[in-house]
Amino acid sequence: MDKTKIIENIKTLASKDINNMYLNDFFLTWEKTDDELDAVFQVAQILKAMRDNNISSKVFDSGLAVSLFRDNSTRTRFSFSSACNLLGLNVQDLDEGKSQVAHGETVRETANMVSFLADVIGIRDDMYLGAGHSYMKEVARSVQQGHEEKVLAQRPTLVNLQCDIDHPTQTMSDALHLINRFGGIDGLKGKKIAMTWAYSPSYGKPLSVPQGIIGLMTRFGMDVRFAYPEGYNVMDDVVEVAMKNANKSGGSFEIASSMQDAFKDADIVYPKSWAPYAVMEKRTDLLRSGDDSGLKDLEKECLENNKKFISWECTRDLMDTTRDGKALYMHCLPADITGVSCRQGEVSADVFDQYRVPMYIQAGYKPYVIAAMIFLSKFKHPGDKLMEVLNRETKRIF
Amino acid sequence: MDKTKIIENIKTLASKDINNMYLNDFFLTWEKTDDELDAVFQVAQILKAMRDNNISSKVFDSGLAVSLFRDNSTRTRFSFSSACNLLGLNVQDLDEGKSQVAHGETVRETANMVSFLADVIGIRDDMYLGAGHSYMKEVARSVQQGHEEKVLAQRPTLVNLQCDIDHPTQTMSDALHLINRFGGIDGLKGKKIAMTWAYSPSYGKPLSVPQGIIGLMTRFGMDVRFAYPEGYNVMDDVVEVAMKNANKSGGSFEIASSMQDAFKDADIVYPKSWAPYAVMEKRTDLLRSGDDSGLKDLEKECLENNKKFISWECTRDLMDTTRDGKALYMHCLPADITGVSCRQGEVSADVFDQYRVPMYIQAGYKPYVIAAMIFLSKFKHPGDKLMEVLNRETKRIF
Amino acid sequence: MDKTKIIENIKTLASKDINNMYLNDFFLTWEKTDDELDAVFQVAQILKAMRDNNISSKVFDSGLAVSLFRDNSTRTRFSFSSACNLLGLNVQDLDEGKSQVAHGETVRETANMVSFLADVIGIRDDMYLGAGHSYMKEVARSVQQGHEEKVLAQRPTLVNLQCDIDHPTQTMSDALHLINRFGGIDGLKGKKIAMTWAYSPSYGKPLSVPQGIIGLMTRFGMDVRFAYPEGYNVMDDVVEVAMKNANKSGGSFEIASSMQDAFKDADIVYPKSWAPYAVMEKRTDLLRSGDDSGLKDLEKECLENNKKFISWECTRDLMDTTRDGKALYMHCLPADITGVSCRQGEVSADVFDQYRVPMYIQAGYKPYVIAAMIFLSKFKHPGDKLMEVLNRETKRIF
Repeated sequence: MDKTKIIENIKTLASKDINNMYLNDFFLTWEKTDDELDAVFQVAQILKAMRDNNISSKVFDSGLAVSLFRDNSTRTRFSFSSACNLLGLNVQDLDEGKSQVAHGETVRETANMVSFLADVIGIRDDMYLGAGHSYMKEVARSVQQGHEEKVLAQRPTLVNLQCDIDHPTQTMSDALHLINRFGGIDGLKGKKIAMTWAYSPSYGKPLSVPQGIIGLMTRFGMDVRFAYPEGYNVMDDVVEVAMKNANKSGGSFEIASSMQDAFKDADIVYPKSWAPYAVMEKRTDLLRSGDDSGLKDLEKECLENNKKFISWECTRDLMDTTRDGKALYMHCLPADITGVSCRQGEVSADVFDQYRVPMYIQAGYKPYVIAAMIFLSKFKHPGDKLMEVLNRETKRIF
Repeated sequence: MDKTKIIENIKTLASKDINNMYLNDFFLTWEKTDDELDAVFQVAQILKAMRDNNISSKVFDSGLAVSLFRDNSTRTRFSFSSACNLLGLNVQDLDEGKSQVAHGETVRETANMVSFLADVIGIRDDMYLGAGHSYMKEVARSVQQGHEEKVLAQRPTLVNLQCDIDHPTQTMSDALHLINRFGGIDGLKGKKIAMTWAYSPSYGKPLSVPQGIIGLMTRFGMDVRFAYPEGYNVMDDVVEVAMKNANKSGGSFEIASSMQDAFKDADIVYPKSWAPYAVMEKRTDLLRSGDDSGLKDLEKECLENNKKFISWECTRDLMDTTRDGKALYMHCLPADITGVSCRQGEVSADVFDQYRVPMYIQAGYKPYVIAAMIFLSKFKHPGDKLMEVLNRETKRIF
Repeated sequence: MDKTKIIENIKTLASKDINNMYLNDFFLTWEKTDDELDAVFQVAQILKAMRDNNISSKVFDSGLAVSLFRDNSTRTRFSFSSACNLLGLNVQDLDEGKSQVAHGETVRETANMVSFLADVIGIRDDMYLGAGHSYMKEVARSVQQGHEEKVLAQRPTLVNLQCDIDHPTQTMSDALHLINRFGGIDGLKGKKIAMTWAYSPSYGKPLSVPQGIIGLMTRFGMDVRFAYPEGYNVMDDVVEVAMKNANKSGGSFEIASSMQDAFKDADIVYPKSWAPYAVMEKRTDLLRSGDDSGLKDLEKECLENNKKFISWECTRDLMDTTRDGKALYMHCLPADITGVSCRQGEVSADVFDQYRVPMYIQAGYKPYVIAAMIFLSKFKHPGDKLMEVLNRETKRIF
């Protein structure tokens, strides 16, 4: 994308109704309008194009971004760090350990104490069902209150870097990948995508990706097939969201009970392991009560159960059943690759290898998606601001 | 504060005798003149006003700030990080663990090795009585020597982020809060402030806050009442400092033996737990000799002793005895709140709740106080420099 | 060095053949041409002089530097951080623990996932013989491939912050120190340097410094004497490199079997402990197989063996045998100082003390050497770019 094309893209922002993004957070994609999601895609592309053209998009001369990861993370941590750096913000880690923090005054106090000069707070909290999203909302309320009470000069924007319900920076990157692959958002209409469970020898993988995918991909008029073994269902609320979305967008949403059904004639496949909702609920209770032996029993039981579905692997044979045998394989990475990272896993080595490059490219959108979310919440007229940034002509590398 | 008012405030700096702050450290408030403290307050307010008006106060195009925390810290860490970021410095943590580092060559060497491109060193070292302040002085001597020997191109400024004697970034923020509350530094004259012990179910809280408060608040012509249970006295040297200060400033300093006495007709109250000096001394010896069972015995003994003074709680009834029942309640946070963060603590939930907002605001001055300390040590003519910064008209958010 | 002198130095870069440094990595000094090494020295001096003259050399308006330390490090970490900060890059740590990461897809994937917006990757990996350098090459291949596959918009530059073979940022700093001490690179011709083993009560010190020193100092026409007790030899390949270098540069390289022989009439001495190559090989095997008791036995055996050579200490008497008794003593720090950091060590306290200041100065070149390596890999015409930077006249401190 050259400068002329960047300007064209910036101009498209003017027609979008995105006033509500200003000074607002990003928690769940289904809380956002189509225009808002579209603006994120657009701004992400523009910021990427600027960087590719050595144009600096730094808009903060100084400013802090608070990062709170309750789980180990390399990819998302670097994506957040890269996004903040691109805009001129400096990341300061808030290290509260992995334990669930208390509620009430402790959350409110900490949220305010770290935010005196903070413009952004990025949180990853996906370990406890029913906790991550609530925690983020509590932090958002705390800083909102702090701002209204004149404790905070500015109201930091929250970005959900993965919670128990959704993983919007991942799924929006996935969607942007598809948009670019299929010639624009309209190119996704009528395309069939299979979001399916897949076997993994590990346990307790979060539900946020499959939930996020069915909650988002149903927005674009796609035929979404969701398949998993018996008992591996996700949150009912999100399934309902997916159904409503499909209805509204003119696509479809169906639950299948085998990879075979879901993959048949699919244009895109996204096979990935997750833990059953019921197991995650039990695990949350055990974690909260600190029942270590209970957790071990649950893990054992769960791994045993997983093994029943060891055949849920994305193989060449399965890929051959997709549209012209050429479906795009997707994964949020890292994947459990049979014979590479484990004995038996989510995907065969040859399928993974074939799609390695598009998967890496898919992951590469995340920093820009995060930067776009921040950008859109910080400027009342993001299009005008991007034009100013462009015309400033500051080089990223001198 | 708008731009005109900012200029007015900058102009007041010209009349102050602050030459000695240039290239100098900030360890203890009582080592600083009234003009110097006043300059910190002024510059902190100016930097805050600039940021509130979206004026960038970045004065370092690049530069490192070394942070050394020998104790866990969220608030002070974020304050230091925010202050450095505001001025354009990047924080690099020096992680030496919590153990007391060796003296002599090791300190000198490390201090120099991390300072080749460092403009600031912030240290928190409050665990060992008689150690924190000495350590900071040793680091200061080391980098001074390094600068004189042409090892270091610049002499990094040290900022005491809490030691065994004083906690100047905290108490200066507290004082700035009071200055703004009582209509300027002159408004503090004759005001009565009660710095008192309060019961806490935890043990070994540092002495630096009560010591810092009596060492600083006696500077402003206030009537300082210092109250604690028998045996909970602090360092004699600091008490002497407080007496001298009160004498000189036209205020008063008295030690009371009950919260009741101290609170009576007070304009401000600051009830907070700390460990007795004698206990801290014993603890330092035990820590040094690595006597774990001795430490456990001491903790048990100490908590038992604390319990005798469980009635030292800041309650509504006590607050009613202050001036018109309307004293300003202060705390450096986090507080032990009865029924909220513990069963029985320093303050009742309703008193804490009533003063939550002013307490948050109190905490919010710290980043600016730290930034002011750094700014004043880095520029020979800080007023002129601030005017240049203002006239540069760089926006913080583009 | 004033501005006129800086310009003179920049101009000397034009005559050097350094095209191959552009977008290239820095792993081993002996992979680089004389012109390339010389360019690193020049640019390091220029960047240092700019900073000394308060001229900002920031060339990245934004950008990430990934730092991966598989070993604890304070000095090199701060040097890398300082270098990146000087140029405008922000360091993000990649924390993979100290364990050796897997090869193949895991390395390739991680290398790409952290590099979407990364300009530099600095790696320290010196724990396993035969692993550190290979790992760095694998990361380099991964990001090269990622760049060619259009996964990465830019190809991050790798800087070897110490591997199992070489420690180029250390030895290049050491060499720059010598260049400045002996009046330029030509002043080193014919000078005698003794790189010798020295006794230390600790075990398993890496070979990268002695190997790096003999591999580099033989480039400058120096007479390099390499001395160690029986069995403490280093990698054969590097010894061969040293011989070839000496041959080509008109210097000499000889292996001696005592400090006495090596020190005799030396102009420079660099006595430093290391572990025998054979021991490091055994240790690598034991570490890999997780054989803890084997490791303990090896350590015991090794320390016992070390003790046979307790007389290998750099004393005043030994120093008196050097050229006019005035050889320059060097160490990469921290040193094991007899009676200071240990009972019996590499150097006597009086010798160390005498040379403390030059050693600190020696260490101070490292941030600039690293910055120079990065700078030279990022600009096709580094001389022109430095001139632009100079003429931009941005102050480092406003």
